[in-house]
Amino acid sequence: MSPFNPVTPTILSQLTAIVGADNCSTAESELNLHAQDMSGHPPHLPEVVVWPQRSRQVAEVLRLAHVQRTPITPWGAGSSLEGNPIPLHGGILLSLARMTQVVALHADDFQVTVQPGLPYKDLNERLARHGLFFPPDPGANATIGGMLANNAAGIRTVKYGACKDNVLKMEVALADGRLIRVGSRSVKQASGYDLLHLFVGSEGTLGVITEATLRLLPIPQRMSAVVASFPDVETAVQAVVAIRGSGLEPAALEFIDGVTAAMLTEHGGADFGRRPTLFMEFHATHEESLRLGLAEVATICRELGVHEIRSTADPTERQKLWWARHHLFETQVRLHPGLRWLILDVAVPLSAYPALVGFVRQELERTGFVGYMVGHAGDGNLHVTLPFTDEASYAAATAVNAAIVRQALDLEGTATGEHGVGIGKRDYMVWEHGTAVDLMQALKQTLDPHGILNPGKVLPVKRGT
Amino acid sequence: MSPFNPVTPTILSQLTAIVGADNCSTAESELNLHAQDMSGHPPHLPEVVVWPQRSRQVAEVLRLAHVQRTPITPWGAGSSLEGNPIPLHGGILLSLARMTQVVALHADDFQVTVQPGLPYKDLNERLARHGLFFPPDPGANATIGGMLANNAAGIRTVKYGACKDNVLKMEVALADGRLIRVGSRSVKQASGYDLLHLFVGSEGTLGVITEATLRLLPIPQRMSAVVASFPDVETAVQAVVAIRGSGLEPAALEFIDGVTAAMLTEHGGADFGRRPTLFMEFHATHEESLRLGLAEVATICRELGVHEIRSTADPTERQKLWWARHHLFETQVRLHPGLRWLILDVAVPLSAYPALVGFVRQELERTGFVGYMVGHAGDGNLHVTLPFTDEASYAAATAVNAAIVRQALDLEGTATGEHGVGIGKRDYMVWEHGTAVDLMQALKQTLDPHGILNPGKVLPVKRGT
Repeated sequence: MSPFNPVTPTILSQLTAIVGADNCSTAESELNLHAQDMSGHPPHLPEVVVWPQRSRQVAEVLRLAHVQRTPITPWGAGSSLEGNPIPLHGGILLSLARMTQVVALHADDFQVTVQPGLPYKDLNERLARHGLFFPPDPGANATIGGMLANNAAGIRTVKYGACKDNVLKMEVALADGRLIRVGSRSVKQASGYDLLHLFVGSEGTLGVITEATLRLLPIPQRMSAVVASFPDVETAVQAVVAIRGSGLEPAALEFIDGVTAAMLTEHGGADFGRRPTLFMEFHATHEESLRLGLAEVATICRELGVHEIRSTADPTERQKLWWARHHLFETQVRLHPGLRWLILDVAVPLSAYPALVGFVRQELERTGFVGYMVGHAGDGNLHVTLPFTDEASYAAATAVNAAIVRQALDLEGTATGEHGVGIGKRDYMVWEHGTAVDLMQALKQTLDPHGILNPGKVLPVKRGT
Repeated sequence: MSPFNPVTPTILSQLTAIVGADNCSTAESELNLHAQDMSGHPPHLPEVVVWPQRSRQVAEVLRLAHVQRTPITPWGAGSSLEGNPIPLHGGILLSLARMTQVVALHADDFQVTVQPGLPYKDLNERLARHGLFFPPDPGANATIGGMLANNAAGIRTVKYGACKDNVLKMEVALADGRLIRVGSRSVKQASGYDLLHLFVGSEGTLGVITEATLRLLPIPQRMSAVVASFPDVETAVQAVVAIRGSGLEPAALEFIDGVTAAMLTEHGGADFGRRPTLFMEFHATHEESLRLGLAEVATICRELGVHEIRSTADPTERQKLWWARHHLFETQVRLHPGLRWLILDVAVPLSAYPALVGFVRQELERTGFVGYMVGHAGDGNLHVTLPFTDEASYAAATAVNAAIVRQALDLEGTATGEHGVGIGKRDYMVWEHGTAVDLMQALKQTLDPHGILNPGKVLPVKRGT
């Protein structure tokens, strides 16, 4: 028996009273649009979609759900990859998509305060005229709130950190409708418990982010690009270690395996050959610094026996060098029409990266899967894309995923580097965190005693529920 | 009536059984040595000092304290500045000073795992032969455990972050004696609630850190130094904003006010004049990059009307330029013999720094205090040192502290940038965090239901207790 109550006509009218009739819908088309994210997890319909426009409305909707024991699932852009915002238990779908204001730009403080529904690419477009940007860059045009809730990261995390490193202060609506402020506009903070980071990455299961003050950086004046292919993965990772050890601070340090390089060379307009390849980006204030850095990278790679290395500080050439990497997923989709893709996400300490990549290749060969590896090697993060078409191939892909996650954990890594737990990784939480999961459960109980917030996510599902 | 029980002979013999007779003492000399940190807060004697040597022993001592309802206060080096480890309610003083092992060095992962009692300068000495260092640098030779528990920072935080940004994984003993692991050796983490940051900065009130895996960086190959004096604080802060905005990434960006500059010029072997002065440090891999950076800094400062600027990339000259700044506190103590010093610690958004400095100067003039201002301007952190000799002058200094904290909060800053809450700042928690303090209280209740862990710290003291 469900511990939850459905959305009754009374609740519907209360919701309408809070957000207004234009911001509340039970239309089938809207329910369908909010039933599934970009993952392969099965869709599930909510009973109603609401679009609050102010923090206070979010809080009031939560209070109503809390009192009525109705499940409530926050939604940003639906671009997540682990089923994070799928309304597994129906109930209220709380879309933040109409909260897109820039509340305040503090240019001299390198900060901006925004509503959670603002997509980060839109934000960065608006910041560009001030010479500033928000560094986390997950790819799809995710919302700031969704990125914070999932602690999203991306290719520039090796230098600039993940979402958790680029947020200073948030307003959060708690399950019972209290609105609190966590963190501070002061970048240095040693004042009381770090509630800010408790909510970042909690995937809307502990509270709903209603406003966030983000840390910004000046847009880099000059960038260079390097593409280098290596005889094997071990050598490529030695280069990663040596480059990071040199103090050069790459802004991106991406990896593709030999199979993926071959795919891009044959079908993606690249000429990388068929070897493990690193893509790098460096940022500097002066052209001369860039050039010195590139020379040092070349020396490091050559001493390690690089197969081929190309680099440029020219903006046009740089975009050409990275083009195939940026269009990797499109190329892959074009090459395999009709397939859907499961995108795996694990991360390990850098020194374990070759072992992880080797295990994945073995596992792909054992199971006969076509699979491509692309990773943020600078921070040990690896994605593997596995095709599926039907339930049987989805189950097979999921089994490969399970084996790879277990291998990553055996290598002292994590079940998810940047996509979050959602539905897909909750069964690995005890494996990864052991008895610390009891403490996570206790915090959930403290913050959301009725379990209404995004139920079925992050924490392992207890037997019998 | 105290909610706690005293340390009975039975408890003493149980403690001895856990840690061994050599690691348990009720000698008056030991009790005295653990009654006060480096702050001006009144000393308070513990009833017994224990020195566990293994995590399991820490957990067993905690379990005993939990069952017996005996207060227990963790202790690192006693170098804190807000009374953080003073055993306010007596009970057990848990010194981590004999847990100083380097558990594992993972050089290729840029990580080291250590016990909490290891002083960070000792750690950095051992790491130097591997070309690595742990960036947070609070000054006094604090222990890693104490630094993490207080989220210590220091002069290089503007580039490298505070303790919270440089720790990946910890083992933590909970109040009831459970040992859990939080975080991961993977630098990217999106797996479940961020328990790691819940314990960092919780000052031993939620659990005791028994092991930590730290993020390391390569020792910078080349450093430069700049000292620049400005006509006024506003101009100095404009320079800070412009330098950060240029993308130059200073590794230190320190401020002293005109009075402090005059003091150093007259008594500290410096020739800065009597104007607000910035000290900067830049790190680079190549000499040429350093030189280009220094030229750009000079241009920025001159355009803003700098009074005088000196810079160098030479190691000996660099140490000379910074000498007076590094020996500031010694100079001050020598100049005012017989005085003790209250060291204030607030932080604000960068744009509010001139207003904060102006308020402090006004407040010092109003009260007639000799007070020196030295700050980590790069991240808006300001310290003010106020002399005291007796109870009356201590009370007067504390009143000035209160006014400055309230001003920092009015400027959207924080009551403490890096010294933590301890005893000295707990009364400002509600002012700073509002109703979020209720959530902090709820977390404390969940994690430490009997309130035995470092009682009287961080959270505001409830009436009647």
